[in-house]
Amino acid sequence: MAILNVELGERSYPIVVDSGLLSRKDLFQQYVNANEVMVVTDETVAPLYLDNLLNTLSGFNVTCHVLPDGEEHKSLATLAELLDTMVAAPCSRETTLIALGGGVVGDIAGFAASCYQRGINYLQVPTTLLAQVDSAVGGKTAVNHVRGKNLIGAFYQPRCVIADTDTLSTLDSRQLSAGIAEVVKYGCIRDAELFTWLEQNIDKLGQCDRDTVSHTIIECCRNKAELVATDEVEQGDRALLNLGHTFAHAIETVTGYGTWLHGEAVSAGISLAADMSCRLGWLEQKDVERIRALLRRANLPVCAPAEMTVADFMRNMARDKKVVAGRIRLVLLKAIGEATLVSDYPDDVLQTVLESAATY
Amino acid sequence: MAILNVELGERSYPIVVDSGLLSRKDLFQQYVNANEVMVVTDETVAPLYLDNLLNTLSGFNVTCHVLPDGEEHKSLATLAELLDTMVAAPCSRETTLIALGGGVVGDIAGFAASCYQRGINYLQVPTTLLAQVDSAVGGKTAVNHVRGKNLIGAFYQPRCVIADTDTLSTLDSRQLSAGIAEVVKYGCIRDAELFTWLEQNIDKLGQCDRDTVSHTIIECCRNKAELVATDEVEQGDRALLNLGHTFAHAIETVTGYGTWLHGEAVSAGISLAADMSCRLGWLEQKDVERIRALLRRANLPVCAPAEMTVADFMRNMARDKKVVAGRIRLVLLKAIGEATLVSDYPDDVLQTVLESAATY
Repeated sequence: MAILNVELGERSYPIVVDSGLLSRKDLFQQYVNANEVMVVTDETVAPLYLDNLLNTLSGFNVTCHVLPDGEEHKSLATLAELLDTMVAAPCSRETTLIALGGGVVGDIAGFAASCYQRGINYLQVPTTLLAQVDSAVGGKTAVNHVRGKNLIGAFYQPRCVIADTDTLSTLDSRQLSAGIAEVVKYGCIRDAELFTWLEQNIDKLGQCDRDTVSHTIIECCRNKAELVATDEVEQGDRALLNLGHTFAHAIETVTGYGTWLHGEAVSAGISLAADMSCRLGWLEQKDVERIRALLRRANLPVCAPAEMTVADFMRNMARDKKVVAGRIRLVLLKAIGEATLVSDYPDDVLQTVLESAATY
Repeated sequence: MAILNVELGERSYPIVVDSGLLSRKDLFQQYVNANEVMVVTDETVAPLYLDNLLNTLSGFNVTCHVLPDGEEHKSLATLAELLDTMVAAPCSRETTLIALGGGVVGDIAGFAASCYQRGINYLQVPTTLLAQVDSAVGGKTAVNHVRGKNLIGAFYQPRCVIADTDTLSTLDSRQLSAGIAEVVKYGCIRDAELFTWLEQNIDKLGQCDRDTVSHTIIECCRNKAELVATDEVEQGDRALLNLGHTFAHAIETVTGYGTWLHGEAVSAGISLAADMSCRLGWLEQKDVERIRALLRRANLPVCAPAEMTVADFMRNMARDKKVVAGRIRLVLLKAIGEATLVSDYPDDVLQTVLESAATY
């Protein structure tokens, strides 16, 4: 069992990674307050793992809420339905919420935990690779607005992240690939060693090889925990975790939430960011190709959708959370393993990148 | 100009109290980040003070949103409309939100500030006595759920509270009385001196006498700032500020939000809490009478609505945020000026209080 800590003073918490954790009653007991538990999951995960978790939670007073599956349901309306269930139960302020599922479940349930009675205890129990390596860690919670991704939410840290690697065995290959996009991201932004290791091990990761997956999750969580510890509410370096995400959010919004998986859009976004970094003279073309080759080997897209215009990108990127003084700030690469936040790029370079975004 | 500080480390902020503050451009400039401002007000306050504020904010890039007036609109649906305006503007993460209005405006707008792009800068500019003495200070934000008051929200501190006492000149007498209920509350829970002073000055306060009002606001804010500084997220003594509120929230929910003003319900709630404190042998009957006499002199109710049954109370109080381990915790009085949080009272005493709640 690997345990990493997110160091945030009195809000510090562990990330526990191992197989079989869903059955570890001792582990859940340690982080559940009082006797009341609210389990939030979705239609896909419920038939697979809900019974297992409920069995582990026997003896607790448990209420369940099953969300519809998919990014298109990550909305205020879906949040309101979850809150209705919590009020009807009624859940008290002592309730511990458990988010069992992928990134969408974690984001909605985490936001619900942050605002129900102005904040209750919650645990992230991620069941997808993307959630285990990235979204379940760090306390970012949100729902989408129809005009922009993750525009409504809170920074609200869980009490613990419990990543049971057994749950990845039921992940379909498209979802697994989506998670790998975020893994490649960590390599690109601050861990050249991880990137090189991925070049050697991506096929085994794509086959969900047990040791490969464990190493991947631990290394990604270590990177994320370090960034979150130094910058909880994204005033600085934490923004580097958004490599590719400004482009990705535009793709997800324009194509309709759920059409592209978040990780797929991030993959295309990383490819665009690499291209722009190269055009600015920072990243060598061969490194752009290394990044794209790695993404392609994971069956991930490296181009934006052909139907997206430059205007589509610009309109949606203008609503991104990283806009400052009217400028879209972008995470770009100085090298593989070194990212930087840039707002003083020439506009025509961004224009050129967006014009050729569908052609890589 | 009086300035009090709410001491919360890096989240510390001033409460500024004076006449004419709405016109003080220097003051607003000091607390507005960047150039973007989102002003949130309501249909009642907009025609009275919005132009004044917009004039003061000339030179800033200002977006306005006018909320419908009244507690019945303090809902997730109203919040969603405000967020739509902010996304459409589009407001960036650098935007400063200004809440111009009473408690309802401050609660909704503050919650919007907490969750828009996971949190933006905001100022409270309270325009009612209730908001100036109580709700604008301390960072409690929320909307109501149809089944319970303030069940969805956040602890999110403003950057500054700007209380322009001139705005009280347009307050109708019912709203003014509602504010006085919260003033009486401070006297009851921790400031016997303020209570005695109120007994001597309540008539002048009811006439909105300038010096009386200023003294009242400053004393209440001093009390609130002290409690908030020691217990930001209500793990302990901050809960004392809820004297009468558990009863009040039940009254507001059962009668329909907006039928009773919040302060009116608090007044009846304080009267019930005083009665219960007396029945437990803590508060003398003559002090119960002093409290009720003071509330009556401010034209406030001291009885619950006749149509409310004990079951109505119990069902709604069970969803209160102060429920712990299935027990409704109540703020009760050991004396005028000394409150305590109690959960081990005999149930039949609460039953008796609720049975006689309409008969004082």
